[in-house]
Amino acid sequence: MLEELKQEVCAANLLLPAYHLVTFTWGNVSGIDREKGLMVIKPSGVPYEELTPEKMVVTDLEGNVVEGDLNPSSDTKTHVELYKAFPELGGIVHTHSPNATSWAQAGRDIPCYGTTHADYFYGPIPCLRVLTAEEIEADYERNTGLLIVNEFRRMNRKMLEVPGCLCTNHGPFSWGKNPKEAVHNAVVMEVCAEMATKTELINPKVQPAPQCLQDKHYMRKHGPNAYYGQKKQ
Amino acid sequence: MLEELKQEVCAANLLLPAYHLVTFTWGNVSGIDREKGLMVIKPSGVPYEELTPEKMVVTDLEGNVVEGDLNPSSDTKTHVELYKAFPELGGIVHTHSPNATSWAQAGRDIPCYGTTHADYFYGPIPCLRVLTAEEIEADYERNTGLLIVNEFRRMNRKMLEVPGCLCTNHGPFSWGKNPKEAVHNAVVMEVCAEMATKTELINPKVQPAPQCLQDKHYMRKHGPNAYYGQKKQ
Amino acid sequence: MLEELKQEVCAANLLLPAYHLVTFTWGNVSGIDREKGLMVIKPSGVPYEELTPEKMVVTDLEGNVVEGDLNPSSDTKTHVELYKAFPELGGIVHTHSPNATSWAQAGRDIPCYGTTHADYFYGPIPCLRVLTAEEIEADYERNTGLLIVNEFRRMNRKMLEVPGCLCTNHGPFSWGKNPKEAVHNAVVMEVCAEMATKTELINPKVQPAPQCLQDKHYMRKHGPNAYYGQKKQ
Amino acid sequence: MLEELKQEVCAANLLLPAYHLVTFTWGNVSGIDREKGLMVIKPSGVPYEELTPEKMVVTDLEGNVVEGDLNPSSDTKTHVELYKAFPELGGIVHTHSPNATSWAQAGRDIPCYGTTHADYFYGPIPCLRVLTAEEIEADYERNTGLLIVNEFRRMNRKMLEVPGCLCTNHGPFSWGKNPKEAVHNAVVMEVCAEMATKTELINPKVQPAPQCLQDKHYMRKHGPNAYYGQKKQ
Repeated sequence: MLEELKQEVCAANLLLPAYHLVTFTWGNVSGIDREKGLMVIKPSGVPYEELTPEKMVVTDLEGNVVEGDLNPSSDTKTHVELYKAFPELGGIVHTHSPNATSWAQAGRDIPCYGTTHADYFYGPIPCLRVLTAEEIEADYERNTGLLIVNEFRRMNRKMLEVPGCLCTNHGPFSWGKNPKEAVHNAVVMEVCAEMATKTELINPKVQPAPQCLQDKHYMRKHGPNAYYGQKKQ
Repeated sequence: MLEELKQEVCAANLLLPAYHLVTFTWGNVSGIDREKGLMVIKPSGVPYEELTPEKMVVTDLEGNVVEGDLNPSSDTKTHVELYKAFPELGGIVHTHSPNATSWAQAGRDIPCYGTTHADYFYGPIPCLRVLTAEEIEADYERNTGLLIVNEFRRMNRKMLEVPGCLCTNHGPFSWGKNPKEAVHNAVVMEVCAEMATKTELINPKVQPAPQCLQDKHYMRKHGPNAYYGQKKQ
Repeated sequence: MLEELKQEVCAANLLLPAYHLVTFTWGNVSGIDREKGLMVIKPSGVPYEELTPEKMVVTDLEGNVVEGDLNPSSDTKTHVELYKAFPELGGIVHTHSPNATSWAQAGRDIPCYGTTHADYFYGPIPCLRVLTAEEIEADYERNTGLLIVNEFRRMNRKMLEVPGCLCTNHGPFSWGKNPKEAVHNAVVMEVCAEMATKTELINPKVQPAPQCLQDKHYMRKHGPNAYYGQKKQ
Repeated sequence: MLEELKQEVCAANLLLPAYHLVTFTWGNVSGIDREKGLMVIKPSGVPYEELTPEKMVVTDLEGNVVEGDLNPSSDTKTHVELYKAFPELGGIVHTHSPNATSWAQAGRDIPCYGTTHADYFYGPIPCLRVLTAEEIEADYERNTGLLIVNEFRRMNRKMLEVPGCLCTNHGPFSWGKNPKEAVHNAVVMEVCAEMATKTELINPKVQPAPQCLQDKHYMRKHGPNAYYGQKKQ
């Protein structure tokens, strides 16, 4: 069942330690089969060196396990809420990568200080408020997903133009058209977080990059007339 | 004698360089056989690349060598005082890992700024006062252990809920139900120390994570209704 | 066609990940055949692990592809403007290396704080102004090259004495007598950027190194009586 | 000639990249044969991956080449002045390791903030003044050595108790009873420099470790009643 997607999701999970985004089991990647309405996600607490496609867990879009002997990631409900709300998403990642997590702990949006950021994220990477005691108590992981959904709608920002966010006192989530792209965006967020910290140390009065430069870089990669890279890649 | 424990302690010691927690020989791990009342610990000053289970040193709970040709770690008496006071401990680690040591040198508790920390440490990681000249002169390593014992009792904090601390101007100690778990907690402390430093650079006015979020994350991993990971793991 | 130069440019591109200067495809190296008036450059968006000499793209000095199935780097026009203006250049590099990029994002010249810097760069590494909206809109990559050309001429600084610069809100460019030397200078810039940040954290009132020390180190490596290294190397 | 010492010096040089203390060729190690009055040192500007014992250069204690086809390190005269003044030295190292160099660039002594430092360096690691224009002009490398000699005598500090120093705007030198120990001390200095920077970021008002703690740690490793490590090691 969903063998190809399981392989894809397993491979994307293994990119997390390869890109130094996780310590121990602190991260997870999922993918979705939109036709079948099923999600494939990392099992909870399983070390990356033991991951195989067969160990991936299949759930429905309420987070119920449909196939698999292991418990799915404890963040499963966060993933399903995002998939349900945004049909453009094909892969989701959560990590505790140190630089992005430090910005989440600091409770600040990551400003767009340069083209590295603008090449992938259109505008600042938002840091969403911490959940209330009631939200945490009632259904923590689902409410984390609903917060992301509601805040992106409220801010009127498009998920694939801003393919990630921070949750205050917690860490980063990212996403993309497929699991691999979601991991790619997690790496970008981590690098941009590291550079934003250093940028502010070097110049405490620094301002975001001019909007025209942000537009240029985002559009040359993602706009209708994009010319970065090779065709069809 | 204690072959299995020697293997376990040797393997745990070798995790220290694998996780980049030590330079040269600056760290040690011990384990205990509660039935026999014997501790197994790294020999002093022996490079990690030369460690084998046979080189581990067996001591009694006063720190006297019971088996082994080599001197035990110079921190032996610190370890035994902790084992004697807290029967729940099965493994102890001391390192000079750079980020945790920097907090120890700075003489500050590591605040709980997020869920990475709250997943393993309930509340701030305490930084204990420096020993007095008399305590250092009289019996330095034993008094280091007694300080940890007395301070955790005075603060009324449970050793397995706060599985590590800092000693001012010195470095981190951590512990767990067994040697491997003690190393795991040493890694967590190092990562949380690194992120806490960055968090304060990004937002000098940052406050600790809300208590309800700390409770949620600690409890979902360690509480009576824990649901993180797989059963029996 | 230009087989030797393609090999040289491909090898220099592969040094970028080897020296940890790039994430993903965020960098490119070019070389030039002055006799033929042709440039060889990395193809756009191709992962480093897939690079081979055959995939290198040959362009003329207007940036038109002369040979190669792939699109050349999106920064091609920046490279050609530099080669056209400065006949002493044999190789050019652009990366988003994190420390140099952080200084670019901060919009500051990197001061010469020591001999590591002075051994390769004579004086501060300049950070050039951000392009205007008009310059970005009209011909972004070509205008980036023209800015570097005009600013170095205006500052009356020699390209091979100051073999690199920063573009505000973007990142570093470097160059040299050949592609390998250009990469060498990119590494030096990254290391000097990292150390300059730390230097200012350690001493916020630090001043640049005395001019006589800068002169001594630059000259013992690059002056008419240079005595560093081996003859003819 | 001096085959054993050449092997020892070559091996010690190769430890520099292994411990991440050097970029490119930015470092050198020497050793001395006191009976013969000859020094063995790395050749200048030769990449570490090409180093072999046969390429080491033998000089007398004025820095004249006695054997070897290659030029000796450009810092040769600094090394010989130290050997001439201090008969207890058996090995000397110079690097541009980034954290120690940042303190040198900042022009500050590295305070002793903890036991990691106190285990090897008795008291702060001194940062020596920058040379005058006259000293640089007249005989730069020899005057660097003479400065270290004169300053350690003026401060009345023993070379083997303070086995390293910083030269302002330049970088660290370290030494020991033999080349390997000198490299060991270079690593310690780099780690202590990194942690001192972080310590001050975490607590800008931090004070050095109490003298009694510094004494205890230095003496338990190096005093007459030292008990760290194994006998005769």
